[in-house]
Amino acid sequence: MQGESLRALLEAVKEGRTGVEEAFGQLRKLPFESLGFATVDHHRAIRCGFPEAIFCQGKSADQIVAIFKTLAATGGDVLATRAAPEQFRAVKVAFSYAKYHEAARCITLQQIEKRPTVGTIALVAAGTSDLPVIEEARVTCQIMGQKTEQLYDVGVAGLHRLLAQAPTLHDARVVVVAAGMEGALASVVGGLIAAPVIAVPTSVGYGASFGGITALLAMLNTCAPGVTVVNIDNGFGAGYMASVINRLGEAKPDK
Amino acid sequence: MQGESLRALLEAVKEGRTGVEEAFGQLRKLPFESLGFATVDHHRAIRCGFPEAIFCQGKSADQIVAIFKTLAATGGDVLATRAAPEQFRAVKVAFSYAKYHEAARCITLQQIEKRPTVGTIALVAAGTSDLPVIEEARVTCQIMGQKTEQLYDVGVAGLHRLLAQAPTLHDARVVVVAAGMEGALASVVGGLIAAPVIAVPTSVGYGASFGGITALLAMLNTCAPGVTVVNIDNGFGAGYMASVINRLGEAKPDK
Amino acid sequence: MQGESLRALLEAVKEGRTGVEEAFGQLRKLPFESLGFATVDHHRAIRCGFPEAIFCQGKSADQIVAIFKTLAATGGDVLATRAAPEQFRAVKVAFSYAKYHEAARCITLQQIEKRPTVGTIALVAAGTSDLPVIEEARVTCQIMGQKTEQLYDVGVAGLHRLLAQAPTLHDARVVVVAAGMEGALASVVGGLIAAPVIAVPTSVGYGASFGGITALLAMLNTCAPGVTVVNIDNGFGAGYMASVINRLGEAKPDK
Amino acid sequence: MQGESLRALLEAVKEGRTGVEEAFGQLRKLPFESLGFATVDHHRAIRCGFPEAIFCQGKSADQIVAIFKTLAATGGDVLATRAAPEQFRAVKVAFSYAKYHEAARCITLQQIEKRPTVGTIALVAAGTSDLPVIEEARVTCQIMGQKTEQLYDVGVAGLHRLLAQAPTLHDARVVVVAAGMEGALASVVGGLIAAPVIAVPTSVGYGASFGGITALLAMLNTCAPGVTVVNIDNGFGAGYMASVINRLGEAKPDK
Amino acid sequence: MQGESLRALLEAVKEGRTGVEEAFGQLRKLPFESLGFATVDHHRAIRCGFPEAIFCQGKSADQIVAIFKTLAATGGDVLATRAAPEQFRAVKVAFSYAKYHEAARCITLQQIEKRPTVGTIALVAAGTSDLPVIEEARVTCQIMGQKTEQLYDVGVAGLHRLLAQAPTLHDARVVVVAAGMEGALASVVGGLIAAPVIAVPTSVGYGASFGGITALLAMLNTCAPGVTVVNIDNGFGAGYMASVINRLGEAKPDK
Amino acid sequence: MQGESLRALLEAVKEGRTGVEEAFGQLRKLPFESLGFATVDHHRAIRCGFPEAIFCQGKSADQIVAIFKTLAATGGDVLATRAAPEQFRAVKVAFSYAKYHEAARCITLQQIEKRPTVGTIALVAAGTSDLPVIEEARVTCQIMGQKTEQLYDVGVAGLHRLLAQAPTLHDARVVVVAAGMEGALASVVGGLIAAPVIAVPTSVGYGASFGGITALLAMLNTCAPGVTVVNIDNGFGAGYMASVINRLGEAKPDK
Amino acid sequence: MQGESLRALLEAVKEGRTGVEEAFGQLRKLPFESLGFATVDHHRAIRCGFPEAIFCQGKSADQIVAIFKTLAATGGDVLATRAAPEQFRAVKVAFSYAKYHEAARCITLQQIEKRPTVGTIALVAAGTSDLPVIEEARVTCQIMGQKTEQLYDVGVAGLHRLLAQAPTLHDARVVVVAAGMEGALASVVGGLIAAPVIAVPTSVGYGASFGGITALLAMLNTCAPGVTVVNIDNGFGAGYMASVINRLGEAKPDK
Amino acid sequence: MQGESLRALLEAVKEGRTGVEEAFGQLRKLPFESLGFATVDHHRAIRCGFPEAIFCQGKSADQIVAIFKTLAATGGDVLATRAAPEQFRAVKVAFSYAKYHEAARCITLQQIEKRPTVGTIALVAAGTSDLPVIEEARVTCQIMGQKTEQLYDVGVAGLHRLLAQAPTLHDARVVVVAAGMEGALASVVGGLIAAPVIAVPTSVGYGASFGGITALLAMLNTCAPGVTVVNIDNGFGAGYMASVINRLGEAKPDK
Repeated sequence: MQGESLRALLEAVKEGRTGVEEAFGQLRKLPFESLGFATVDHHRAIRCGFPEAIFCQGKSADQIVAIFKTLAATGGDVLATRAAPEQFRAVKVAFSYAKYHEAARCITLQQIEKRPTVGTIALVAAGTSDLPVIEEARVTCQIMGQKTEQLYDVGVAGLHRLLAQAPTLHDARVVVVAAGMEGALASVVGGLIAAPVIAVPTSVGYGASFGGITALLAMLNTCAPGVTVVNIDNGFGAGYMASVINRLGEAKPDK
Repeated sequence: MQGESLRALLEAVKEGRTGVEEAFGQLRKLPFESLGFATVDHHRAIRCGFPEAIFCQGKSADQIVAIFKTLAATGGDVLATRAAPEQFRAVKVAFSYAKYHEAARCITLQQIEKRPTVGTIALVAAGTSDLPVIEEARVTCQIMGQKTEQLYDVGVAGLHRLLAQAPTLHDARVVVVAAGMEGALASVVGGLIAAPVIAVPTSVGYGASFGGITALLAMLNTCAPGVTVVNIDNGFGAGYMASVINRLGEAKPDK
Repeated sequence: MQGESLRALLEAVKEGRTGVEEAFGQLRKLPFESLGFATVDHHRAIRCGFPEAIFCQGKSADQIVAIFKTLAATGGDVLATRAAPEQFRAVKVAFSYAKYHEAARCITLQQIEKRPTVGTIALVAAGTSDLPVIEEARVTCQIMGQKTEQLYDVGVAGLHRLLAQAPTLHDARVVVVAAGMEGALASVVGGLIAAPVIAVPTSVGYGASFGGITALLAMLNTCAPGVTVVNIDNGFGAGYMASVINRLGEAKPDK
Repeated sequence: MQGESLRALLEAVKEGRTGVEEAFGQLRKLPFESLGFATVDHHRAIRCGFPEAIFCQGKSADQIVAIFKTLAATGGDVLATRAAPEQFRAVKVAFSYAKYHEAARCITLQQIEKRPTVGTIALVAAGTSDLPVIEEARVTCQIMGQKTEQLYDVGVAGLHRLLAQAPTLHDARVVVVAAGMEGALASVVGGLIAAPVIAVPTSVGYGASFGGITALLAMLNTCAPGVTVVNIDNGFGAGYMASVINRLGEAKPDK
Repeated sequence: MQGESLRALLEAVKEGRTGVEEAFGQLRKLPFESLGFATVDHHRAIRCGFPEAIFCQGKSADQIVAIFKTLAATGGDVLATRAAPEQFRAVKVAFSYAKYHEAARCITLQQIEKRPTVGTIALVAAGTSDLPVIEEARVTCQIMGQKTEQLYDVGVAGLHRLLAQAPTLHDARVVVVAAGMEGALASVVGGLIAAPVIAVPTSVGYGASFGGITALLAMLNTCAPGVTVVNIDNGFGAGYMASVINRLGEAKPDK
Repeated sequence: MQGESLRALLEAVKEGRTGVEEAFGQLRKLPFESLGFATVDHHRAIRCGFPEAIFCQGKSADQIVAIFKTLAATGGDVLATRAAPEQFRAVKVAFSYAKYHEAARCITLQQIEKRPTVGTIALVAAGTSDLPVIEEARVTCQIMGQKTEQLYDVGVAGLHRLLAQAPTLHDARVVVVAAGMEGALASVVGGLIAAPVIAVPTSVGYGASFGGITALLAMLNTCAPGVTVVNIDNGFGAGYMASVINRLGEAKPDK
Repeated sequence: MQGESLRALLEAVKEGRTGVEEAFGQLRKLPFESLGFATVDHHRAIRCGFPEAIFCQGKSADQIVAIFKTLAATGGDVLATRAAPEQFRAVKVAFSYAKYHEAARCITLQQIEKRPTVGTIALVAAGTSDLPVIEEARVTCQIMGQKTEQLYDVGVAGLHRLLAQAPTLHDARVVVVAAGMEGALASVVGGLIAAPVIAVPTSVGYGASFGGITALLAMLNTCAPGVTVVNIDNGFGAGYMASVINRLGEAKPDK
Repeated sequence: MQGESLRALLEAVKEGRTGVEEAFGQLRKLPFESLGFATVDHHRAIRCGFPEAIFCQGKSADQIVAIFKTLAATGGDVLATRAAPEQFRAVKVAFSYAKYHEAARCITLQQIEKRPTVGTIALVAAGTSDLPVIEEARVTCQIMGQKTEQLYDVGVAGLHRLLAQAPTLHDARVVVVAAGMEGALASVVGGLIAAPVIAVPTSVGYGASFGGITALLAMLNTCAPGVTVVNIDNGFGAGYMASVINRLGEAKPDK
């Protein structure tokens, strides 16, 4: 397509329909466009229904509303993470359809209807304190049109809780594991299943948990293959990656 | 098989050949076996053609040969990572078909014929010093039957080298990025494409690179979504994860 | 109970009331239940009188009361750590017998009468600032039915204070040592006695004490054998471990 | 002046008004005064129009006003960084011409008219959260009489935004790059241009960004030559260095 | 008792049976003895058959032999850890009965016959690379007269291997767990059983395992109660602590 | 001396002048006293006029007043550090002579008249933000009866300010240097003089100053001999050490 | 120029001299070229005489010779850093004019004659152990055509050595300061002069110098403005940056 | 001497032999010389008999001999630390009187006869592995003319060993304490005595001792006042500081 518009421009120059200077001007701007960078960005949003995300922490309600409006104007979905209730109230005034996910601290505005995916993403959390992170992952998956299953409070201190859920784990196409403290859950899950595991260390813990560093290091050193890691408390990143992977497994008849 | 022995026990109970108490005793011990964990492991190998890997560092040649024999006996492929030339020579005596990948420091024994995948995994390395790591990823992908494309020495200090390869990047279904020093390449690649990116920090650098910690931290903090991270120098882990993901995108007619 | 249901199923198969396939299906799901992990957990509580503990920090009063009710319903003791006074007030409404230990920041509900242990656990604290941690250990020991002796404010800067208490130390079957700053007390106590020492680094200090890291590292590097370490400020963990160990030393006539 | 008093002393010795021993005593103490260090400081301010800067954080409004008065009395410009609005209000009472730069959290009092520089300093920021830091750099450059260009929100996750600004980057004589998270922008900019780049890591990020340490380390490990680094969030230092460098490139006819 | 001997001495002085100088000599030595410090040390060795241990690393063969002779002369057992084969050969010359434990890198000289303990210590290791550490623990337990059970190569990446050994774990009175990399095994074992668990982080791993720091931190942050930790690779310390604890559980009819 | 009193006691027992029980009572207390532990503590306070210090941070006003009363009752001086104004007000009620040093955040109660020392302690601070720390050192020196000289705001960025004070530095018998940020002042002072230098890193700074760690490390790595270091912000420790050292230099005619 | 070739191509298409497909092919490749990225790289080398640098550490002699040949073939200068004597001997065979700088561990091949700069770069080193780093900076400056002055062994422990060189410092247009241990020299120099200072921390030191981290942190926290920092031991980076800056100050009559 | 040349110049001005302008010129350059810094250095050596020290590590035998000759030529004592036997052999050729202290790894050349000090410095080491460090301190004290007492192998794991030496500790005017691992000895000694304690952390230990960091942190966080710290393994620095302090306590009749 890009190639086509380039060819068309050259034909127009050849046929005199477009002047050299005008073509020159367009081509000067073209490289970046023809590189497909900006286009890629647009394509990404249109093709995948993947929303642009706003990181609300440290932004004023006004700023969030302004960015929200810009993103919503493209007709795509909007996801705002780390959003406080008062930030949502400001968004709500402008977008009555916007929805607040309290546990996940997220605001979503769903503007694109999506066909549910066939494959599921299993969302696994070690304890109830990991809820904000795993819920951020869940809301991210949801607005990206993914089917999810939740397995919460299945930490390794009571291993039977996790093992009882083994069928759900085995059926998942991608698994997100959120855990704080010693972060052992990612290794245990990674050792049980063949699907790709996205591990999210959480800042849950105290003392030598160092705000999630211990869980992060443990997950990076997992002895189970097929486990990769995102930043501490980065539920959005884990949900995004899981969605990108799950999409690869969907039937694409027209390809 | 497991199922069969369970069924046989039940039949024996039904037919009175085995007493309730005796069956009860056997079943009490059975759970771990019937859990299917070992089976899962076997299923994994058989279903995916994913080889078991041997981490050679710190093992004697004798130990490696012994483990190699055990794994090869199952008829599956064998991959040995971090293998020194002398370790390979010992393996070569027992397995004349074993192959040494010098740059990757890997030994492979391919026993299963695989249909090449449709989708490709792009392997991107920042500099020539990152070769051992990205090659370990490549050999891992290869023995797992994946089609790969190499983009080496395309670090961000000369961005045009990477941009010139943009089409290859865009065509890939999964991308592995290996970089040391400041590890910026993962973010730049993640910002260019929509496919999942597996980032491998390498220990290339000096001074405040701290043996790869800087690259690791940078990759974990990437501002590009769709990027996850494995341990420093863990080319095997990156290649394994990329293969697992790429497999999800292959045509599965009977599903 | 688990055993009973398993036996009942086998009887039903034997008597033809349940078909082999149906039993097979039930048994496939059974393993996790029959694993006895949950049972182990229950056994633990019943056998040892060890309460389940609630970590209150970061939980709402409502959440704590809800968990408290679930645990109390089993008839066992309940221990809630890191509890604020207002959290206790909410618990008090539902459980008028619940007790608040201010210095320890703990809530306890004692439902099981316990025979006092013969052996004692010595609780040693370096300074008055370590009180919340050592008191958390003491309350944990107490609800687990242990006899304790307190030796508080006996830090190494005035060694004679500790030495004057040597007899109490020598009579203890297990010793818990809580210290912040340089954490030297654990080594000094470990060098004086033969009993096992559980060392708890506390976050007491400033500057290069790094919130307890210095004490933690010092305790891990103790030159005295027979000293093991728990997380910073983890008085509960130290008290729990000390209780588990002390129980081993109690007379068990029927074993 | 210093020279004058030295000369006067020598004259007094020559004329016998001051004895050798007395002069000897005075000269023994003189060196520090005659070193001209204080003079150097004054020279710096007078010659370059470089203001003394007040770091307001942790100072009371009274203290800031007092220091402000002392500095303003020399007739030079005054720059106060990390200034809160209430601190500005106190300064405003004494200096009605003082100006508050909200985004930069700076107060300036411009007392010296400056000829704009020919060369420009490009100020590049990765995201909107980096604004306080890059604006501190901008205000510093401005009061030091430098011409600046701003390129904000051009992070590497959307590389085309930066590339679209390549001409501005190429025209700059010095470039300041502020970025948090993985700090990759400094390397990318350093790889695109030949001008000296001053990189400022910012504390923007969460989890393993460790308050800017990750960006700092990444910038120190840049694979692009011609990049140097200042402390985390040190917009003033970056702007100051850029101004000192840019001044070197200005036409100096009388030199 | 101490008091009695003190009183007796004073009586003897009063009655002239003991001279002032002789009493003075005894009293000069008494304080430390009456404090019980030196006595404790002797009591410990005699009562428990616990050997003094020599840390061989960085000592010359001559030094080791010299210390070995001193310790052996007391008639007690001797344990030398981190001993190289050539160090053993030097010891062997002087003590033909000394024994070298290659995997554990330990030398032992058993001079005291011991009744085997009733309770067992389970020694659990995650991988074959953890052998030197867990074997050091085993040899320490053995010379301290403990009965042990080994469960090696049961890491969490293949959880069924561990679960298959659950009965052995449940029967143990104390458990030592050695694991490197992410150190998750300690939490998993701690979640399965009620016995005290001594966790030993090992330096097995690479990259972000930081020579055992990750495993250490993970073990300190375990979500399972009843787990305490020793220094990285400190198999001796773990074995010593486990032995001290196990001894508490032995029948002591005469107490 | 201790030996003499011991001999004397024995003689008294022998001659019947002291009863066995009475001697027993004295000897029971003796070990610690004859060890000199308790005695040392008392001697220290009486001989040097060195006050016991109370670290107020994290203590309630009631607790502080209680400890204050205990210490004051011995007739010695009392020093309370890190004291908030409201804590002082509570102390003031009980001790109308107590004095609050606002900049130093200290309370003092001077009960012993002291002869001023001949030698002086120079107190050197890099910036005005280091005042709380250097003033804590000054108040500590003062209550310990030391003569001090202050050299404040003489940081290395304007070296002439320090050099101008060289005579004061050279005249001092001990020097305390407080500096934050890069802590270079300790090395510069250490390079100028022959007297012992006690360096106090302060938590002044931001970003990579890491709350004083950078200054601490810099001071520990000083290239100037004769410099030792105390904990971050530990003005009390520095003042105490300087006083102990300065006392050694005082004329002691009766020794 | 780039624009001209673009215009020329368009004219050729318009005039039919170049076919659409051929132009299309050229333009597909053009974007990257017209972006000027590759061009920038070439321009940089040609315009400034700045050589490409080879980091020899970890490369074989063969690899170095190969890269050397490629770079030399462009007619530009070549600089190889961290080169061992044996690596030089291999280069010497191919390039008899190549020169080895032993103290700097650098190989240079000077192919472009350069007019010496008017302004000088002062190279300041704290101790003799810092020589390899500061000499690497010097050789880099030299091959980039800069005039340099050396001030070696002028550390702050003997401040007079530095002060005696003040005139040289004041005359320099840019200053490079290399120091290990506490790195205080950068602050002291930065406080004495107005020129830009590039600070290079070196790995000289032991214990808590942590291989240069202390010096690095100290330099980043400098209280002197006009100081920026490069990676530990990065003499090349410092020399490169100093040369880029110094070039800005040179007379450019035709600009 | 400096004073003499200054006086001579003034005389020449007074007598008209030197003009005011010429003297002015000379005096402008003089300050750095007349600052007396170099003089201070010389004064220090002459007055105190404190030798200059050579840090041999990383220096060639030739370099060491050259520096040795320069220092020896002044007639003062010479101390070379961290010297290997082969380095000593080279020095021995040139200085037959030079002496090698093997345990301390030091070379000394004593050229100045010194009166032994009255006060003693107690040198305390925790274990035999700390010998190189404490011996470096001892040799430093010795060449600086100090009387020392050694208390080696008195670590806190066997506290009675230290307590038995209490009289020696109490008699010392200054105490140096060297300890690795958890470094608790410094606090214990600091709590026993009133004299100033110089603590030297050593790199003795493994695992979480981090090459001495744990001991360093523990010593900085000591709860005993009167303790200051030097760098890890810096026996020279500790011995130097102790000597400087001890000298203050010596009788100075002519002062």
